[in-house]
Amino acid sequence: MRKTIVITLIFLQTIFLLAQEKSLTEYVNPFIGTSNFGTTNPGAIAPRGMVSVTPFNTAGKVNGELEKDSRWLSTPYVAENTFLTGFSQVNLSGVGCPELGVILAMPTTGELETDYLKYGSTYSDEKAHPSYYSVELDKHNVRVEATATTRTGVSKYHFPAGQANVLINLGLGLTNEEGALVKIVSDTEIEGIRNVGTFCYYKPEESYPVYFVARFNKPAKRTGIWKRPRKYEGVEAQWMGYNGKERRYEGYRKEIIGDSIGTYFSYDFDEPTTVEMKIGVSYVSIENARENLERETSTASFDQIRKTNDQEWNRLLGKIQVEGGSEEDKTIFYTALYHTLIHPNTLNDGNGEYPSMAQRKTMKTDGTRYTTFSFWDTYRNLHSLMSLVYPEQQSNMVKSMLDIYKESGWLPKWELNATETTTMVGDPAGIVLTDTYLRGITDFDAELAYKAMLKSAETIENNPLRPGIEDYLSKGYLTTKTTNSGSVSTTQEYNITDYAIAQMAKELGKKDDFKRYSKRSVSYRKLFDPKLNLLRPKNDDGSWNEPFDPGFGNDFVKNLGFIEGNSWQYTFMVSHDAKQFIKMMGGGKAYVNQLNKVFEQDQFDMANEPDIAYPYLYNFVKGNEWRTQDKVKELVRKYFTNAPAGLPGNDDTGTMSAWLIYSMMGIYPVVPADPSYTLSTPFFDKITIQLNPKYYQAKTLVIEKNGEGKHIKNIKVGGKPHKGYFVDHSELTETGHLEIIMD
Amino acid sequence: MRKTIVITLIFLQTIFLLAQEKSLTEYVNPFIGTSNFGTTNPGAIAPRGMVSVTPFNTAGKVNGELEKDSRWLSTPYVAENTFLTGFSQVNLSGVGCPELGVILAMPTTGELETDYLKYGSTYSDEKAHPSYYSVELDKHNVRVEATATTRTGVSKYHFPAGQANVLINLGLGLTNEEGALVKIVSDTEIEGIRNVGTFCYYKPEESYPVYFVARFNKPAKRTGIWKRPRKYEGVEAQWMGYNGKERRYEGYRKEIIGDSIGTYFSYDFDEPTTVEMKIGVSYVSIENARENLERETSTASFDQIRKTNDQEWNRLLGKIQVEGGSEEDKTIFYTALYHTLIHPNTLNDGNGEYPSMAQRKTMKTDGTRYTTFSFWDTYRNLHSLMSLVYPEQQSNMVKSMLDIYKESGWLPKWELNATETTTMVGDPAGIVLTDTYLRGITDFDAELAYKAMLKSAETIENNPLRPGIEDYLSKGYLTTKTTNSGSVSTTQEYNITDYAIAQMAKELGKKDDFKRYSKRSVSYRKLFDPKLNLLRPKNDDGSWNEPFDPGFGNDFVKNLGFIEGNSWQYTFMVSHDAKQFIKMMGGGKAYVNQLNKVFEQDQFDMANEPDIAYPYLYNFVKGNEWRTQDKVKELVRKYFTNAPAGLPGNDDTGTMSAWLIYSMMGIYPVVPADPSYTLSTPFFDKITIQLNPKYYQAKTLVIEKNGEGKHIKNIKVGGKPHKGYFVDHSELTETGHLEIIMD
Repeated sequence: MRKTIVITLIFLQTIFLLAQEKSLTEYVNPFIGTSNFGTTNPGAIAPRGMVSVTPFNTAGKVNGELEKDSRWLSTPYVAENTFLTGFSQVNLSGVGCPELGVILAMPTTGELETDYLKYGSTYSDEKAHPSYYSVELDKHNVRVEATATTRTGVSKYHFPAGQANVLINLGLGLTNEEGALVKIVSDTEIEGIRNVGTFCYYKPEESYPVYFVARFNKPAKRTGIWKRPRKYEGVEAQWMGYNGKERRYEGYRKEIIGDSIGTYFSYDFDEPTTVEMKIGVSYVSIENARENLERETSTASFDQIRKTNDQEWNRLLGKIQVEGGSEEDKTIFYTALYHTLIHPNTLNDGNGEYPSMAQRKTMKTDGTRYTTFSFWDTYRNLHSLMSLVYPEQQSNMVKSMLDIYKESGWLPKWELNATETTTMVGDPAGIVLTDTYLRGITDFDAELAYKAMLKSAETIENNPLRPGIEDYLSKGYLTTKTTNSGSVSTTQEYNITDYAIAQMAKELGKKDDFKRYSKRSVSYRKLFDPKLNLLRPKNDDGSWNEPFDPGFGNDFVKNLGFIEGNSWQYTFMVSHDAKQFIKMMGGGKAYVNQLNKVFEQDQFDMANEPDIAYPYLYNFVKGNEWRTQDKVKELVRKYFTNAPAGLPGNDDTGTMSAWLIYSMMGIYPVVPADPSYTLSTPFFDKITIQLNPKYYQAKTLVIEKNGEGKHIKNIKVGGKPHKGYFVDHSELTETGHLEIIMD
Repeated sequence: MRKTIVITLIFLQTIFLLAQEKSLTEYVNPFIGTSNFGTTNPGAIAPRGMVSVTPFNTAGKVNGELEKDSRWLSTPYVAENTFLTGFSQVNLSGVGCPELGVILAMPTTGELETDYLKYGSTYSDEKAHPSYYSVELDKHNVRVEATATTRTGVSKYHFPAGQANVLINLGLGLTNEEGALVKIVSDTEIEGIRNVGTFCYYKPEESYPVYFVARFNKPAKRTGIWKRPRKYEGVEAQWMGYNGKERRYEGYRKEIIGDSIGTYFSYDFDEPTTVEMKIGVSYVSIENARENLERETSTASFDQIRKTNDQEWNRLLGKIQVEGGSEEDKTIFYTALYHTLIHPNTLNDGNGEYPSMAQRKTMKTDGTRYTTFSFWDTYRNLHSLMSLVYPEQQSNMVKSMLDIYKESGWLPKWELNATETTTMVGDPAGIVLTDTYLRGITDFDAELAYKAMLKSAETIENNPLRPGIEDYLSKGYLTTKTTNSGSVSTTQEYNITDYAIAQMAKELGKKDDFKRYSKRSVSYRKLFDPKLNLLRPKNDDGSWNEPFDPGFGNDFVKNLGFIEGNSWQYTFMVSHDAKQFIKMMGGGKAYVNQLNKVFEQDQFDMANEPDIAYPYLYNFVKGNEWRTQDKVKELVRKYFTNAPAGLPGNDDTGTMSAWLIYSMMGIYPVVPADPSYTLSTPFFDKITIQLNPKYYQAKTLVIEKNGEGKHIKNIKVGGKPHKGYFVDHSELTETGHLEIIMD
């Protein structure tokens, strides 16, 4: 009897503890990165969702210097701003170019007003979780709640009594593209199309449509469309009493087309009333948008949808469990992991259909066609993290890359919604393909991948991925004549890809290719000036370009040798050739001295990719590993915090976040396309990564930190002492255990 | 044997004569009215077709002062112009406001060029019949042929060897509306939407879409879409290398939306090759446009379609046969009849569907839903002509009017493609309803029609058809305070409609209404100034508006009293009260004298409706009928010729042409809503009108002119001597015979 009571007590205590324990999504703070140009947003989203319901507060001069049209601004939401003009349903997170941020839904009260400068509102009491966003709109006294499925945004508007309106503004948007079509299907449904595109203000010929269907749970009393036509000039203007003025089409049931149009659904409520609206989205057709909405939300309530979404986030975040460490550290860690699960995102509809590259013919996939591949950023760390933690996703990402190759004839570089934006330099896809393959994700057509890699590496004429390839092949590098921007950087990028091709050739038994590409991969050496111990641009005749200021190019100033950076920030970006490079520098000491200068002279840029592996480079010089451990810790503490400004800059579709995750786990993939990690100090006592048995031998990879000292004393892999600060991916995933023993 | 030979010879001779005889469509010259602001066009069209394939030559400064954007120009084609930029598929004929003239197809050769100023061409060797238009494009060395079904334009392009392109430009158009969507479905098919509307530069909130599907008989080698986006200004413009520049989307297969977009289908021909293109149109949906195309053209060849179309024109034109008269007279007569068979035109699709008024919900009809009801013009003669010659069409027109009432709550005034443009003044629908009913076309809901007529006659608040009705009812007239334009004209128009309501009330046995509306119908008398023997505007306090110049308002100058005219041109527009009006004038002699002054002082305007019945008014004063005969003959000879300038001005959707047809037949419906005609001299020896046995007793109405004298001596109806110069419609359609015996 007594025993039963004890057991019951223990059982109840366990229940109590379980109930008290925070779910992992509670450790996510979606406001991290919403300031300091992190360009993330706090909108409700499903993992890798096509849709997010994002507060849009970057329109309207009242927002001051962070107004979307007053500068280069690439996010729908900024923590500092105060004036909200709606909730955009398709958005990019952590990018450096304005795009999407369209299908803007907005609840308003009182007489209908369709000018966003007039219906926009200040707001308060924001709440954000991955699956949920909520806010009070001060002007309208409306509480907004939002959640989402993969392809459907779900909003709940708590209206007071009186006139209530739900606007969908298709004129406003973060994108610089214009043009929309809308049709009110019934008093509970709208369908429409919005043009988007010209990411980074180029490739206008690849602008494209996004389709949507919006459904309301309550029939509107009045429905209509508004349009603001452009203002005519000249002789005809005098006959146009309506010139440039807003038009309203109340009760209209056919298509309206225009650059500045929107719909309104209005109600007259006797008492406070809640309206739910779902917006299904597709990049294929209106029919698919409707099917996505029905397939994913069916008759589910807002709360059910939110719960399902939250469970999926918890399931994915739970692939990495951390123990020890502060609540703040857990927050920045899981928020970073959440950021890596936003992009690449889903492009295909629920029925598998998606648009082909550029021409947008309708294709079909059995798996997931991913999009938003910002490879110049993500090849450095994000994809190897995906290979480790979410290999089933990474497999589909690689297959999507090959689909893109099959459709367009070229691998992607910066692919967005089936357009190739050709943003940044280099030819990074091959690095990701090789890296993934060598990490054991081999369930894709490796020969096709290899063929695709060779195409951009070998094609001389009309090569969209490797401009300047002729000079690159004949001279070994691009010159200041080849390009007026980034001749050294681009040479380095091509080298790294050639290194990846060499590794893949080796793996596939193509010995001649291995040799040839290994040689090509180190041609950057010709740009090394031993007098300066730096890389610097050369002219067409082989002479150094003069004058040369290795500090010039910081802060994104355009320069001949380097893209988004300077010589200091690029010189060490040759980790695939580290051994020889250290020799060229004059040995380990000279290398460390030179690397120290980068930090000491404030040339290091945590906010941009070329130098983000720098803190790990000390590990290449024996006896200097403590510098890596100290520097990584310092940088994490300096740049990553639980605050809106808690990212160093653009998250770059999760690249900065992936850097943080690795850095906090004590491992980093310092050599692209090399299936290994270099080591530093974990921020947690124990980290357990669930490994997918389809790809990996061990069920989990456990990283343990033991001891309280400042620096690493010993390392064990699979329980055995490990020599050096580099460890193979295969060793970790086979043994499942890494122990870091502090001194 | 000999007899047989004779018979055979006679038979052969008859065959020969029949073969020689011109078909009636050969008497139609579609170029009549294409100059002098007739605003007709020579495009290929089926009777009352939704579609016409019309040469478009009003764009481009090279066309000089008849360029569409340099002035108020309301036609896609002008005889004087020389620069052709395509073939528009939906067009209006004989209207005074720019609208439609869109879906511009253009064959070009050589390298693709999408700027119409560059691909436009001079042209030569035009041929036009109702069913057919053909032209040589000089620049491209392409022969174009066009024909049409009711809802499908069919074009044939004879290309030389080399690169050939077929453009569909959705940016260019006669309409002032913008906005289009297009999608290339395959290498032989395009679908799209074009915004149109704002006829006469108003009612922007009723702009609407026209849908189309284009099909080619040969797969294109290359297909694509071009877009010219608007030019950005401000800080963002500096990042847009593409700002305002043309974009091309080659091979693209999704929707493109924009104000200035178009498609190209390109071929590389080894030898001269013909391409046929069909464009199906609908005002309901793309699906219906496709169905219309398939239903109406199926597998028929260009020549078969043309032949069917020509047969239908001949069938309808053949409802009136004329004998005697010159070839020129036959030409202007049948061309006029052809003009009356263009508008009103078909709105519904082949499956019966059409858009409802304003809201554009999809409706369905068993008959024909007609559109383009320019009633201020057509109530005066066109609809009574239709009642006589094409009563089955007029019946459907009246039913369409009632459908419009049911959908919108109001009868139409100037209805266009299910929008109410509210062009001009007055409330003319009731006149047409009554006139039709009293002429024996009674197979519509007369009580509903009557109810509809009363609604606009009685509604005080928010009455879109009778603005100023409060003053009209209380004072008997509109004042210079009620409106700043046309207070007298509008009073007269309301009077005529009230007269029509009175006649309908009488017919339906509503005696009180008859009395009341009879009284209302003559309230214009209060605006008669016996000192001047003219109508003139009054102020709100009942005083005459000063100063008063009865000649002011000529040439469409805006003035207080009269719309599109002056006191001279309106004063006599009271034929429904002619007897009393003559008394008011001081008797027949004074009336004739005053009427003479209109002509003598060059105040008569043949080109506008208010005074077009004036030449017939002499018949109201016994002994002056010769003046009508002379004046009508003089006007026909002066204003109507077999030449582009052969109409006096805007054809006004067939009103001028109907005037000519009546005038050449020797009868005219001088009192609106009164089922009678007044008589003058026929221009032919014998006119035979086929009467529809469903509505009329006699099989034909034969009008014979006998004798060669200058003036009418005797008149016989049904073979019996007839007294006076007025004859009832019923007498003519019962006896089937009118004989005019000249002195």
